Amino acid sequence: MTVLVVGSVALDSVETPFGKADEVLGGSGTFFSASASHFTPVQLVGVVGDDYPVERLEALRERNVDLSGVERAEGESFRWRGRYRHDLNTAETLETRLGVFSHFRPKIPEAFKKAPYVFLANIDPRLQLDVLSQVERPRLVVCDTMNFWIESRRSDLIDLLTHVDVLMVNDAEARQLTEHNNLVKAARWILARGPKFVVIKKGEHGSLMFTSSTVFYAPAYPLEDVFDPTGAGDSFAGGFMGYLARAGVLDEVHFRRAVVYGSAMGSFAVERFSIQRLLEITVPDIRDRLDDFRRLVTFEEELAT
Amino acid sequence: MTVLVVGSVALDSVETPFGKADEVLGGSGTFFSASASHFTPVQLVGVVGDDYPVERLEALRERNVDLSGVERAEGESFRWRGRYRHDLNTAETLETRLGVFSHFRPKIPEAFKKAPYVFLANIDPRLQLDVLSQVERPRLVVCDTMNFWIESRRSDLIDLLTHVDVLMVNDAEARQLTEHNNLVKAARWILARGPKFVVIKKGEHGSLMFTSSTVFYAPAYPLEDVFDPTGAGDSFAGGFMGYLARAGVLDEVHFRRAVVYGSAMGSFAVERFSIQRLLEITVPDIRDRLDDFRRLVTFEEELAT
Repeated sequence: MTVLVVGSVALDSVETPFGKADEVLGGSGTFFSASASHFTPVQLVGVVGDDYPVERLEALRERNVDLSGVERAEGESFRWRGRYRHDLNTAETLETRLGVFSHFRPKIPEAFKKAPYVFLANIDPRLQLDVLSQVERPRLVVCDTMNFWIESRRSDLIDLLTHVDVLMVNDAEARQLTEHNNLVKAARWILARGPKFVVIKKGEHGSLMFTSSTVFYAPAYPLEDVFDPTGAGDSFAGGFMGYLARAGVLDEVHFRRAVVYGSAMGSFAVERFSIQRLLEITVPDIRDRLDDFRRLVTFEEELAT
Repeated sequence: MTVLVVGSVALDSVETPFGKADEVLGGSGTFFSASASHFTPVQLVGVVGDDYPVERLEALRERNVDLSGVERAEGESFRWRGRYRHDLNTAETLETRLGVFSHFRPKIPEAFKKAPYVFLANIDPRLQLDVLSQVERPRLVVCDTMNFWIESRRSDLIDLLTHVDVLMVNDAEARQLTEHNNLVKAARWILARGPKFVVIKKGEHGSLMFTSSTVFYAPAYPLEDVFDPTGAGDSFAGGFMGYLARAGVLDEVHFRRAVVYGSAMGSFAVERFSIQRLLEITVPDIRDRLDDFRRLVTFEEELAT
């Protein structure tokens, strides 16, 4: 089944200890789509400026990503320039130019309004709410957010929580939103405000998924070289949603597997700049990585076989 | 089978956001023994001053810990005073008084020299080497260390590595020792210098065990309240060694389970001050926590049953 994603389509310039990339495809919508499209058709809603190299999005279109919701507006495209130092855990933003993204008002095309799976990538919570008012009763709504909105749009964000099934944030965001340092308490706080599931991503330390009565933990894949962490979170979300949309079953086991698929896709994303690695990999690659994740956590006899 | 541990027996004074404890039982040897004794008989070698409340160690003796290797020397006992702030991840040392521990020269009693399992807690690597020269071909030698020795006794430590089967350190120590920020690379560096297994503990982020061809990941137990993190690492080591000594099988599956038992014992230790919680728990408590760890990481169908 189809996944609708509303997010940014940007141009990234990134520096890591391993090299530099200039004006490569970036943005939450882009990473999400490249990742989810391995599992299911994707409908992308976003905006680019009239300077965007749209021909480079062809690679996504070829992979079952419907780009008819990507509006082309007059002006500059969203650009992000960042750097990762030695530890690769935190991006240092050198420059953000929002361009046409600052006036982005998502318009969901008629053909997308029945999308059963909706991912609200990190945009203004007011716009996330507006997207939900445009779509028809999706089966599953997952949303992301960031420190900026937690600070500046707190009440809208809390309103949004009552309309989503899953909140997917990183540990710093969970702590900031809930004012709890302990993640178990933070998750409880969020679950009390609407979502049935909370996924807390901890980068190289893996991720946790909480329900009111259970906790699931998935490690990060122990990579020897993290090439460029940009987009790992949105690639995670793409694997998570893509897998669920494909499986079509929304019980706890499938949500747990979705977290592992998310971790797998995140681990691929960081192996190259931009969406390069996500475009290269195949179904067997993903299956092999899932097997690696299984081996990584098992402590049962089956290992011996 | 018996586990021999050589380490410190101290008096800790600890402040956490949840309360204060003064002059309570502490030290690596103490935590290790309290933990391992749930699985197997323990032989403890250490030193205390003539001011040590040895009667308080009775609780350990009752639990199968042979204290005949705990020397009583003239002078002050080893005392550590520390504080944990809100995040509970890093101890702030307020005072360390080594006392008799600064002249500690471990003498392994005759009756202990055949111990098949040996844990070298965090002491001077020269003393760790000296302990190994006193014992008779143990089946398994595991050692810990710390930043101070990595800096001041680097070459002795590297010599020690050629004599141990497992190095068990935290992530900061692994990075400092190997000068690799990436833990996969750090583990490879260590494995090339002797140990067959490297266990890297990451506190609330769980732990990783590496061999030359495999990686195992065990999460930390997601506790809502970490009361006092002191001794978590040595309690981990106690669960790890205790389980292996009891199981008596040194293959990868058992090592993996040992890591999970270690994580479980570490998670108990932090629920109260000192070794209090470790003395309270019973075999069913440990078994229940193991089941929790299983549920925490499983993403297979069995969950549904």
